Amino acid sequence: MLIRIVLVQNDPVFGEVKDNIERVRALYATRKGLRPDLVVLPELFASGYQFTSKSEALELGEGDGREGREKGPTIRFLEELSLETKGWVVGGLPLRRGNKVFNSAIVTHHGTVMAVYDKTHLFEAENRWFERGSGPLCLVRTEFGLMGVMICFDWLFPEVSRSLALQGALLIAHPVNWVLPFGPQGMILRSVENRVFTVTANRVGEESRGGLPPLKYIGSSQVVSPKGEILGRAPEEKEALLDIECDPEKARDKRVVTESDFFRQRRPDLYRN
Amino acid sequence: MLIRIVLVQNDPVFGEVKDNIERVRALYATRKGLRPDLVVLPELFASGYQFTSKSEALELGEGDGREGREKGPTIRFLEELSLETKGWVVGGLPLRRGNKVFNSAIVTHHGTVMAVYDKTHLFEAENRWFERGSGPLCLVRTEFGLMGVMICFDWLFPEVSRSLALQGALLIAHPVNWVLPFGPQGMILRSVENRVFTVTANRVGEESRGGLPPLKYIGSSQVVSPKGEILGRAPEEKEALLDIECDPEKARDKRVVTESDFFRQRRPDLYRN
Repeated sequence: MLIRIVLVQNDPVFGEVKDNIERVRALYATRKGLRPDLVVLPELFASGYQFTSKSEALELGEGDGREGREKGPTIRFLEELSLETKGWVVGGLPLRRGNKVFNSAIVTHHGTVMAVYDKTHLFEAENRWFERGSGPLCLVRTEFGLMGVMICFDWLFPEVSRSLALQGALLIAHPVNWVLPFGPQGMILRSVENRVFTVTANRVGEESRGGLPPLKYIGSSQVVSPKGEILGRAPEEKEALLDIECDPEKARDKRVVTESDFFRQRRPDLYRN
Repeated sequence: MLIRIVLVQNDPVFGEVKDNIERVRALYATRKGLRPDLVVLPELFASGYQFTSKSEALELGEGDGREGREKGPTIRFLEELSLETKGWVVGGLPLRRGNKVFNSAIVTHHGTVMAVYDKTHLFEAENRWFERGSGPLCLVRTEFGLMGVMICFDWLFPEVSRSLALQGALLIAHPVNWVLPFGPQGMILRSVENRVFTVTANRVGEESRGGLPPLKYIGSSQVVSPKGEILGRAPEEKEALLDIECDPEKARDKRVVTESDFFRQRRPDLYRN
């Protein structure tokens, strides 16, 4: 089954949630006829990334509609977008539960929240304002097979994409705010070693807030096939929409060429966890 | 402790074991004053790679001196070289035990075999003539810390380098016969995600035997630091000696920048094996 995937690579202004969402809406509207089966947006795409205190995170942290917490504007937008596309949407936001804030991804479909994933491996200063997720890793059943979700730094722990693939994910949706240089090349290896599609949506722009070291985001949102082909890659410095087609079924074949197989040749009896 | 590592990138002729060893000797002799703490040679560096039958593998398979099996010329060379350098030597050969042949690496030190590792994950046609190793993965205690050993295709199973690093390897010696394009870039990620030195010795040249698809080896032998810096990389098509210095102790620091740590942040409770 051939599906269409759209990646949104935006340049948010920290804290300007409503304006950032409007900007994404306008960016998406430029290619309105797309009807994607899946839209992936970056980590914290509407809030901005560089928090400077836990109170800022609490202030921008949004409710998810559960346990009497009103839904915030980002989740409402992700729901609306999935209604409009009649497909799946994955995007990141700061999610508040009581006095805790998580760096989370929301999966919506036909206007409804279908999954919430809290980032498990927090990067650097994130440890100061976000709680780490307590698992499990995130798998969602879709009409195009199982989809895994991981957030940014999770990718550098090879166990995350491996675990998603071993549980049957054909495609991994991967909202990021990449600043390190290893990501775009590194995700090729994640696709190859697990024979899955990886769909990474990054932001662009810079942030320099509250005396923290300045951050420059490297764009390069991309989709990589199970054989390591880059099916599409956005520029490093500009906002962009990336639009590609692929067949997730191809990720069921775990063979390298013909006589070796990335899954059957595994030797869990010899591996340490 | 600063150590000196030498990689040998050679171009063997299939089956001409003695000539291939002489050629390596001559290559090494061009830089004789080096006194390396560690020399790494490619997978099957003296036999050649492209076997066409099990009987060829049996014929070229060498004994290792144990259980009454006479030591073959490749092991004797690896012993001699380690006597000459007064250090550690790692190199690959077809190892015969009874009617079985393994694609193995031998570790020698001061003239003695210190470890034998049989490749665990066989690539493509290798499955027809070699037996896969039954483990455990290979760790050797040296004066510069624990050294892991893996062979070629093992690298594409992220669990192998991960398991070696989790068990304390500061450096992974990695004899290969790479033909796929992913290796040189991919090993940067293996170094980064495990924060270890990786020392990959590849061959060059081409082989086309017995109607099998021709193989072109991509050279690019390299040493990568725990932060992903390429400390040295040999050319793609020429025989070469690569000579670098590094401090394996640096691999004890598993931090990413300052507030995140590749080992402490692992969540084995959430991972599948």
